[in-house]
Parts: sequence; structure tokens; C-alpha cells
Amino acid sequence: MQFTAAQIAMIINGKVEGDPNAAVGSFGKIEEAKAGQLAFLANPKYEDFLYSTEASIIIISASQELKEPVKGTLIRVEDAYTAFATLLTKYQEVMTQQMVGTQDPVYVASSAKLGENIFLGAFCYIGEGVVLGNNVKIFPNAYIGNKVTIGDNSIVHPGVKIYHDCVIGKNVTIHAGTVLGSDGFGFAPQPDGSFKKVPQIGNVIVEDFVEIGANATIDRATIGSTVIRSGAKLDNLIQIAHNVEVGNNTVIAAQAGVSGSTKLGNNVMIGGQAGIVGHITIADGARINAQSGVSKSIKTNNAAVTGSPAFDYTSALRSQAVSRNLPELEKRIKELEKLVQQLLAEKV
Amino acid sequence: MQFTAAQIAMIINGKVEGDPNAAVGSFGKIEEAKAGQLAFLANPKYEDFLYSTEASIIIISASQELKEPVKGTLIRVEDAYTAFATLLTKYQEVMTQQMVGTQDPVYVASSAKLGENIFLGAFCYIGEGVVLGNNVKIFPNAYIGNKVTIGDNSIVHPGVKIYHDCVIGKNVTIHAGTVLGSDGFGFAPQPDGSFKKVPQIGNVIVEDFVEIGANATIDRATIGSTVIRSGAKLDNLIQIAHNVEVGNNTVIAAQAGVSGSTKLGNNVMIGGQAGIVGHITIADGARINAQSGVSKSIKTNNAAVTGSPAFDYTSALRSQAVSRNLPELEKRIKELEKLVQQLLAEKV
Amino acid sequence: MQFTAAQIAMIINGKVEGDPNAAVGSFGKIEEAKAGQLAFLANPKYEDFLYSTEASIIIISASQELKEPVKGTLIRVEDAYTAFATLLTKYQEVMTQQMVGTQDPVYVASSAKLGENIFLGAFCYIGEGVVLGNNVKIFPNAYIGNKVTIGDNSIVHPGVKIYHDCVIGKNVTIHAGTVLGSDGFGFAPQPDGSFKKVPQIGNVIVEDFVEIGANATIDRATIGSTVIRSGAKLDNLIQIAHNVEVGNNTVIAAQAGVSGSTKLGNNVMIGGQAGIVGHITIADGARINAQSGVSKSIKTNNAAVTGSPAFDYTSALRSQAVSRNLPELEKRIKELEKLVQQLLAEKV
Repeated sequence: MQFTAAQIAMIINGKVEGDPNAAVGSFGKIEEAKAGQLAFLANPKYEDFLYSTEASIIIISASQELKEPVKGTLIRVEDAYTAFATLLTKYQEVMTQQMVGTQDPVYVASSAKLGENIFLGAFCYIGEGVVLGNNVKIFPNAYIGNKVTIGDNSIVHPGVKIYHDCVIGKNVTIHAGTVLGSDGFGFAPQPDGSFKKVPQIGNVIVEDFVEIGANATIDRATIGSTVIRSGAKLDNLIQIAHNVEVGNNTVIAAQAGVSGSTKLGNNVMIGGQAGIVGHITIADGARINAQSGVSKSIKTNNAAVTGSPAFDYTSALRSQAVSRNLPELEKRIKELEKLVQQLLAEKV
Repeated sequence: MQFTAAQIAMIINGKVEGDPNAAVGSFGKIEEAKAGQLAFLANPKYEDFLYSTEASIIIISASQELKEPVKGTLIRVEDAYTAFATLLTKYQEVMTQQMVGTQDPVYVASSAKLGENIFLGAFCYIGEGVVLGNNVKIFPNAYIGNKVTIGDNSIVHPGVKIYHDCVIGKNVTIHAGTVLGSDGFGFAPQPDGSFKKVPQIGNVIVEDFVEIGANATIDRATIGSTVIRSGAKLDNLIQIAHNVEVGNNTVIAAQAGVSGSTKLGNNVMIGGQAGIVGHITIADGARINAQSGVSKSIKTNNAAVTGSPAFDYTSALRSQAVSRNLPELEKRIKELEKLVQQLLAEKV
Repeated sequence: MQFTAAQIAMIINGKVEGDPNAAVGSFGKIEEAKAGQLAFLANPKYEDFLYSTEASIIIISASQELKEPVKGTLIRVEDAYTAFATLLTKYQEVMTQQMVGTQDPVYVASSAKLGENIFLGAFCYIGEGVVLGNNVKIFPNAYIGNKVTIGDNSIVHPGVKIYHDCVIGKNVTIHAGTVLGSDGFGFAPQPDGSFKKVPQIGNVIVEDFVEIGANATIDRATIGSTVIRSGAKLDNLIQIAHNVEVGNNTVIAAQAGVSGSTKLGNNVMIGGQAGIVGHITIADGARINAQSGVSKSIKTNNAAVTGSPAFDYTSALRSQAVSRNLPELEKRIKELEKLVQQLLAEKV
């Protein structure tokens, strides 16, 4: 399937500079692309490749000045990265819409309600009372527990496990191996040192346009719901404990964890491997650096923290800088002690 | 299904205060519960909700004093949290016992031995020589490798993978996606820089009343067994390496990891994202704070540590406090140096 | 199946000391082994067990001196650990080669090409255009997406999920639950605070002799390939982000994570729970300590780092040592301030 520069420019609202009939059939990195491929330039670091690339069409920013001539046809847009994303999204949407039908065998409970244009991969399990919206795609080996509902256009990748009674919104993507709705980690200590399980009877609610990475875990609430609000993006291997609330458009990088009942605001950004204790609140727009350990609520919007335990980002960086020179600092103290002792001795 | 306050009080050994015929059909949080629901008050922080809740029945502690009248019927018990857990446990036990039979299709090897009253979900795999006790529930898409044994009343959630020869006790719960018995990470370095795999021929033994969260990994021993002792509770995404031993009633929070051949005592508590090096011993009752990195054995029972590398909890907190003021400390040293130089100069 | 000391010595190129007809049928740890079992001594710490073990055959180093007589038959080799590994590897190779055929049911797309002597476990999924080499073993409940190729002798354990277009080399082992080829975490921020997905159209390439642990995640590249080079060993629950390159024979311990576009050299060693930021380069032979947070490129071969943020290992250890005594350091500064104030006061 080939697309011309003119066709692509129409999709991404761009302006062709060069041959509008130049055609491409696949995508490539600007530094590796060959004739017949489409590339883009977003990061100025890669500008040199613009003049050497073999790509037949290159998407660039409207403001990009050319220092040398470019072989391929250019399509100028306001934001090259976003335009490229738009283009690929359209491409993948078409690919996904073509996945329709039911492979054999699957297990579909008789009380399940299935929307139109759905795909059920082999060995997927659809429990009692499940409701799947239109255009839902369930990949092979996925497990959808009893009474789960999944909204229109959502994609459940292979081997995802969704426990009973969870609610998944529209346009949600869940990557392979992720578990939603497993029991929260709640145990009541007993006098003999053993623990008695506190049954977890809540659920998980995932709102619209959320994307969750691979092998992540989101526990069901003890009572009520663990909630992932609209537009949130969660990376691989993250842990969301029971009764947590993740705000709209909040982004959590891989291997980070949020403990029970903590409430993350909107547009929070959490770096990889960061940890957040339970029962606290994180203000909107807060930025939590990778590997931070947040032990107290963050009350100021857009605050940035780092370290374990985490505190104000700028102060923490200063402390870390001094921290590296601690042996030298200790030497200076020793030297001072010697000098002061001399002064004291001489005084007598 | 409705239960009266009198019926519930009998199950949890409580004392009714108010209408013994008040009835409930579901559970709610004290701050959200509606008429017809059961709630409980364990955390004093939530006491205010006791006076405003719409719940028809509320479980509270025998010692709880009332500052205002309460609308619903009270059931007083020694420990409200434990009583609530007991009640939900009974409820879930009934629900689980109702899961019986074999969905279609499953794979059951001819030499497998199945107990009574078991459940086999669709697409589950039961290998050669597997022995399943009575009341075992294997959810869909789970894999039980050759010669695995699973004791009475144990529950294996969807997509769990148990490699050959592992031994699972009674009343064990394993959440979705968890892997037991994968190869330990053992490679012998070769002169050319490559690594030669050390085959891992041991197994994993999980004793009775253990609960393991979702997407956790517990490696089989090189030789012998990786052992999770009775009553231990392991959260999501934790890593237990080959030949580790986890003691009775030890609790490990999400994303923590224990390296090879380390032995954790009984009643140890490990916070989220903590890491413990290999070949060490952790004394009974030790408490390891979240994100700690334990690099040496802990020899004192009930010792508490924090930090990476971890040391004594109280000392570490003090050091962390000073650590935050390091730039100020450096200023004070500079000031001292200036003053001492003045004194020295004036002396001459 | 019994083997004599003479037979075993032939396989591992060793020298028998004692009865060449001594026979064993299974393996045991030197401290636990019984008559009829084979044990080995590699770690000098365990030498005492050499004189008390009941093992019928013990593999030891050629240079091991005996302080007391040993009951069993010895086989002397250059490196006992490597010899033992060789022996077990042969044993497991035989066991694995015996797994042949297709269990029922499986899903195999009509366009898939299957090599000779392969095993397909029940409920495994083989997509369109998949190519499986000879002796490939696909365990139950595994998912092999469209156009994936897997080289000769590779083993895919239960519940592994490999997304479309990924390329797996020869003699690769992938443990249960691991996900290869999930979408990289790429989202373009929009003016309204939401994020637009950047489609991830690259793939993952895993070269020959790589081993990957359980429940790990390796994301596909945005464009191009995420690459795991020949001989690399990756432990459980590790995260490899999009466009990362992991060098030959590089070893990554459990729960470590590497962010997008970072390039790890050859023979790098990364400790458990370490994190590495995106878009940096790590020199060959670098050693990154457990729980380190590497925020800058490491340019010197064989450099060792620790800490978060990570810096030179030796300096970091010194700083950590002083760091533990910070409260005492602060006291010394206070004392100095008092003395200097006295000196200044007396001067007047």
C-alpha cells in the first residue's frame, strides 16, 4: 500500500515542499530510512541526517530552516512529532479495525453481551455477565472475569487478566500480561503472629483513553473502587495498590509503585521505580523523579521532588552535590579542629 | 440475600446495640454506605462518619464511646477490623465453594489425580502426575506443570504458571500471572566473557496459608528448594530468587526483591521496593523499610532498618535529617574556615 | 537411570579418584546429599561437608587438597562449578529433546511454518506468518504473534507473549509470563494536558543464546528495533524500554530497568533494582551496583558505580560511610563554632 506526499499532507494538514507524487510504503528512522520510506525530524540533534537521509518523504516542522538541500520531498507541519504520531495512529487504527471475528476455540459465557465489530482471539475467556462494547478487541489467552464491562474501541492484549466486576472505559489499551482487580494486600495481624486476610470486595475502574503497559498490576479496592482516571498513561510493571486513585492525564513510568489509598492528582508525572507510600495525596501537576520515595503528601501544585525520602527537587540536588564530597568535608572539619586546638593551646 | 444484625452478631461473636432485625444485603465504606448496607469503624480518624453514615448496621469496637447518637444498628466486637474480615471471609468462602466442575476445553494429563469438589477453568493445563487436593480451584488459562502437587482448598488465579515438581500446600492463594518455579538466575562466567547456564534442578515449596500477589516471580532452587513457609504473605511483583527461604508469617510488600540463598526469619516485615542481597540471614521480626537496600545480615530480632545501604532505623532517620541540610552545613564550615584564618593571621 | 563415576568423568573430562563403578541416579547439595546422589564442591566455605557428605560421587576441583578421607568417589575437574553445570545441561538437553509433538488444542495459523522436532503445548497460539526453527519448544498458553520468527533450539515457557514482527534467535530461553514487543511508552503532550499516543511500529530482536527470566517486559521500538545482543542474560521482572540496545553477554539482575534509547555495552553487569535513564551510553564491562540510579553516560570501560544518583563506586562508598555519621559531624561543627566564638570574644 503506497501513499503519496499529497495524500499524507492532507491527513496531517501539512504543506508539501518538493514532488507531491513522491510515494512511500513504510516508515523508517531518519538516520536509517531508505527510498520508499517516510521519516520525520523532530529532535534538532538529528538535523544532520535530514541532509543525508534516503527517505522519500520527510515530515519536518514549519519553522525548520534548511542549511543544505534535501533529497526527499518535505511535508511541513506545525509539530513534526505530533503529525507523525497522527499519521501512524491512523495507520494502526485501520489495521486494528480489520481485526474482526472469533477464533477457535474461545470460552464465552452464555450471559455475556458482545458489541459489534469485535475480535475474540483464540483461548480468550469471557465470563458470565460480561459486556463488551463495539469494536472491542480481545487478544488470545486473555481472561475477562464475570460481570466485567469494557467500553467501545478498547483493546485487551494477549494474556491480560481482568478479575470480576471491574469496569473498563472506552478507547482503553491494556498491554499483555497485565492484571486488573487482583486482591488488595490487606491482612489483619493476629495475636499469635499470623495474619487474617481482609477480603477485598471492591473493584477497579479504568476510565476512557487510559493506556496501561505490560505485566502491570492494579489491585481491586477493599471496599469501593481503585480508580484510574481518564487519559492516564501507566507503563510496564507498575503497581497500583487497593483504593488508590490516579488522576486525569497522570503519567507513571515503569516499575513505579503507589501504595494503598493514596490519591494522585491530575497531570502528575512519576518517574521510573519511584515509590509512594499509602494514605497520602499528591497535588496536581506534581513531578516525582525516578527512584524517589515519597513519604508525605505533596500539597503544592506542580511541585517537583526527588530522593528517598523525597523532598524539594532543587534542595535535594544541592544536598546530593555536597553529599558526594562528604569525605572532603570531613577532612576540612578535621583541619579546623587541629587549627582551633593550636589557637587554644597558644592562648594559654 | 439479606442478613439481620442478630445473625451477623452470631457469626462474629458480637453484641447488638439497636434493632436486632435490621437487615443488610451488601457492604459499604462507612463514609459512603447507604441504607441496606453493612459498614465498620476501625480507624478513629473516621469516627465522624459514624454519626452521619446511612449504613443500616455498623460494626464497631466494644470500647468505642459514642459522642452523638447513631442512626443504624451497632454490633460491638473486640476488634472491628478482624470481625469485618471474618464476616467477609465467610461470605467469600461460600462464593468460592460454589465454583465446581470443569469448563471446556481444558487439558488434563491422564496421570493427573484430581480431588473432590474442584474447579478447572477453561484453557487451564494440568500436567502429567499432577495431584490436586479437595476443593482446589484452578482458574482459566493457568498452567500446572508436571508432578506439581497442590493441597486442599488452594486457589490458583487466572494465568498463574507453576513449573514442574513444585509443591503447593493447603489453603494457599496465588494471584493472576504469578510464576512459580522458573529457573534461578545462575550462570558460570567463561574465559571468553560469555556465560554458561547452571541448570536449576530444584523446586519451589509453598507451605500452607500462604498468599502470593499478582505477577510475582519465585524461582526454583538450583538444587534443593526455594521455600515459602506457612502463613507468609507476598504482594504483587515481588521477586524471590533461587534457594531463598521466607519464614513463617513473613510479609513482603509489592515490588520488593530477595536475592539468592538469603534466609528470612519468621514475622519479618519488608516494605515495598526493598531489596535484599544474596546469601544473608534476616532475624525474626526484623522490619525493613520501603526502598531499603539490605546488604548485610540482620542478627538482632525485631531490628528495624532503612536506607540504601540500610542501617539502624533511628540512626538512619537522624542522618537523613542532617543530609537535607548539607548545603547549610557546608556554609558553616566555610564561615569557620574564614574566622580561623583571621585568627591565625592576627596571631602573627 | 543410573550413571557411573566413569561415565560421568568422561562427559565432564574429569579424573576419577575412588570406585569408578560408584553409581548415582539424582543430584543433591553436598550438605544434604544421600547415597546414590551426585554432589559437587565449588565454594571453599562448604569444604567441611566434603568429609561428612553421604553423596556417592562428588565433583571437586583438581587443586582441592583433602584434609580428611572422603567416603564417596571423587571426580576431579578444573572447575567444579562449570563441570557440574555441563553435566546438568546435558541432562536437561536430553529431557527437552524428548518433548516433541502437538498437544490438543492449539491455534496454528495456516501460513505459519514449523520446523522439525518441535513441541507445541496446549492452548499455545501461533499467528500468521510465524516461522519456528527446528527443535523449538513452545509451552502451553504461550502467544506468538503474527510474523514472529524463532530460531532453532529456542524454548518459550508457559504464558510468554511475543507481539507481532519480533525476531528471536537460536538457543534462546524465555521464561514464563515474559512479554516481548509491547508498545514503547511514547506519548506526545498536547496543549490541553492530555497525551497523544505515538504509535510504536518497530520490533524487538533477541539474538542467539540469550536467556530472559519470568514476567520481564521488553518493549518494541518506536521505529527500528529494541535489541538484546547475543549471550545477554536478563533476570525476572526487568524492564527494557523502546529502542534500548543491550550488549553481548551483558547481565541484568531482577527488577532492574533501562529507559528508552539507552545503549548498554558488552559484558556490562547491572545489579537488581538498578535503574538507568534514557538516551545514554554505558561502556563495555561497566558494573552498576544494585539499586543504583544511573543518570549519565558511563564512558570508561569497566567503571563501577553505585548510589542514586550513581557515581564512582569507591568514592560513593566513602561518602556513604561519612553519611552515616552526619549527626556526629554536625556536633563537631557546633563545637568548633563555640570554640571559635570564644577565641573571637577573648581577642577583644
